[in-house]
Amino acid sequence: MRFTTERRIGDGVLEREFTLGEIPGILWTPAAASAPVPLILLGHPPLGLHKMYPRLAARAQQAAADGFAAATIELPGSGVRPRWAAAEQARADLKRVMEAGEPVRAEIIDALVLPLVDKAVPEWRAALDALLSLPEIGGPVGYAGGVISVGIRLAVVEPRIVAAGFFAGSLVPRVMFEEARQVTIPLHVLLQWDDEGNDRQAALDLFDAFGSQEKTLHANMGGHTGVPQFAGEDAAGFFVRHLR
Amino acid sequence: MRFTTERRIGDGVLEREFTLGEIPGILWTPAAASAPVPLILLGHPPLGLHKMYPRLAARAQQAAADGFAAATIELPGSGVRPRWAAAEQARADLKRVMEAGEPVRAEIIDALVLPLVDKAVPEWRAALDALLSLPEIGGPVGYAGGVISVGIRLAVVEPRIVAAGFFAGSLVPRVMFEEARQVTIPLHVLLQWDDEGNDRQAALDLFDAFGSQEKTLHANMGGHTGVPQFAGEDAAGFFVRHLR
Repeated sequence: MRFTTERRIGDGVLEREFTLGEIPGILWTPAAASAPVPLILLGHPPLGLHKMYPRLAARAQQAAADGFAAATIELPGSGVRPRWAAAEQARADLKRVMEAGEPVRAEIIDALVLPLVDKAVPEWRAALDALLSLPEIGGPVGYAGGVISVGIRLAVVEPRIVAAGFFAGSLVPRVMFEEARQVTIPLHVLLQWDDEGNDRQAALDLFDAFGSQEKTLHANMGGHTGVPQFAGEDAAGFFVRHLR
Repeated sequence: MRFTTERRIGDGVLEREFTLGEIPGILWTPAAASAPVPLILLGHPPLGLHKMYPRLAARAQQAAADGFAAATIELPGSGVRPRWAAAEQARADLKRVMEAGEPVRAEIIDALVLPLVDKAVPEWRAALDALLSLPEIGGPVGYAGGVISVGIRLAVVEPRIVAAGFFAGSLVPRVMFEEARQVTIPLHVLLQWDDEGNDRQAALDLFDAFGSQEKTLHANMGGHTGVPQFAGEDAAGFFVRHLR
C-alpha cells in the first residue's frame, strides 16, 4: 500500500489516496484521533471512484465524525482499471433489456455480478490486510454500501468484518441468496420502496434470507437515489452501536 | 380535565394522573421546561392503563428527555372503564380462534376494532383539546403507539397531529386500508418480522397503502414484544425531527 496524495477535507478529516498494487483507493481518517480507530469499508456500485467520490466523501466524513476511519478501493473493471470482455457484454445486455423495459433475466444478472464478486472480494480482503497494518487503524471493521453481493460474500468469508450495512438491490444472483443464509453478523439494510431499478419483493425475500439474528430493514419512500438524509443518520447509528 | 395525583419520576419528569369526565389518563411533562412543549399522545393496546404503565412510563421518560410532554388515556372498554357486550364477544371470539390456530376472519377483526375506533377517536380528540389548553403544553402534536387503526383514524381526522409512529399489526379491518390512503402526515412504522400475532404481508400491504410522502418502515427480528431498544431510539429520533 502506497500513499500518493494527502489533504484535509471537511472538519478535520485526513484524506489520502493510495494504490495497492494496481488498485487505486482512498483512506479517510479522523485527524484528531489519538488511538487506533475502527474502520468502515465503503462499498459502492461499479461506476468508478471518480464518479462516486462526492457520496463516498460525505459518508467518510460522517464516519470520521463518529470516530471511525473509512476506506474504499476501485472495483475491478471500473474507473481506471482494465475492463474484461464478459463484463462489458453483460453490462451491454443489461442496458439493452432495461431500456426495452424487459425483465432482467437471471443469466444476465449472474454474468454481471458473479465474476465481479469473485474478483472484488479477494481485493477487499487484501486492502483490509494493508489497512489494518497501519498504526492509526485498529478495529473492529464494518462494511457499508453497494454491490450487495460483494458485501454478502465478504460478510460470509471475512471474519474481521463484524457488522454490515447494505443497500437492498434486486440484481442479486439466486446463488447469493444461499450465501445470504450463511451471514450471521448484525445487518442494517436500506430499501427504497419505489426503486425503479429494483424489484421490491426480491429485496424483501433477500432480507428474509439473511441468517443474522440481528437484522433491521429500513424502507423509505422514493427512488434509487432518493435515500433521505435521516436514513443515512440511522445507518451511522448502527455502526456506532457495533464498532465503538 | 381534573388532576388527581402528582409525583416526580425518573430524571425530572412530572407525572400527573387526571380524569376527563369518566376517562382516566396520565400526563408526563419535563419538569425543567420553561416554555410550552410539544406533545406526544401515547397510544397502547386495550389491555388497561395499569398493565401498560411500565412501558408507557418508559416511553414518556424518553419523550421528556427529548423535551416533549406525553399523555395517554384509558381506552373505552379497558381497565376501570365499563365493558360493552359486543366487544367482549369479539374478544372471546378472537381468543377462541387464535387458541385453535385458525385464521382470524375479517368479521371478527371488524367487530373487535371498528367500534373501538369509533369510540376512542373522539375521546382522544377531547383529551387533546384539554391538554392543549394547559399553559405548559404548546405543540406540535404527535401520536405514537398501538391500536394502529385508532392512530390511522386520528391521523386522518385530527389536523393538529403532524406526525405518527405506528406498530404494524395485522388485526386491521380492510376498511382501514382505505383510510390509510388518506393519511398524509409523516409516518414511522415498526414491524416485528417474526411477530406471531401478525401477518407480515398484511403489515407490508398496510405500509404500502399509506398516502404519506414521508413514511419509513423499520423491520426488526423477533416476536411481538421483542422490539429492540435501538428501534425505540430511532422512533424517538423521528419525533425529534418532526416535533422540535
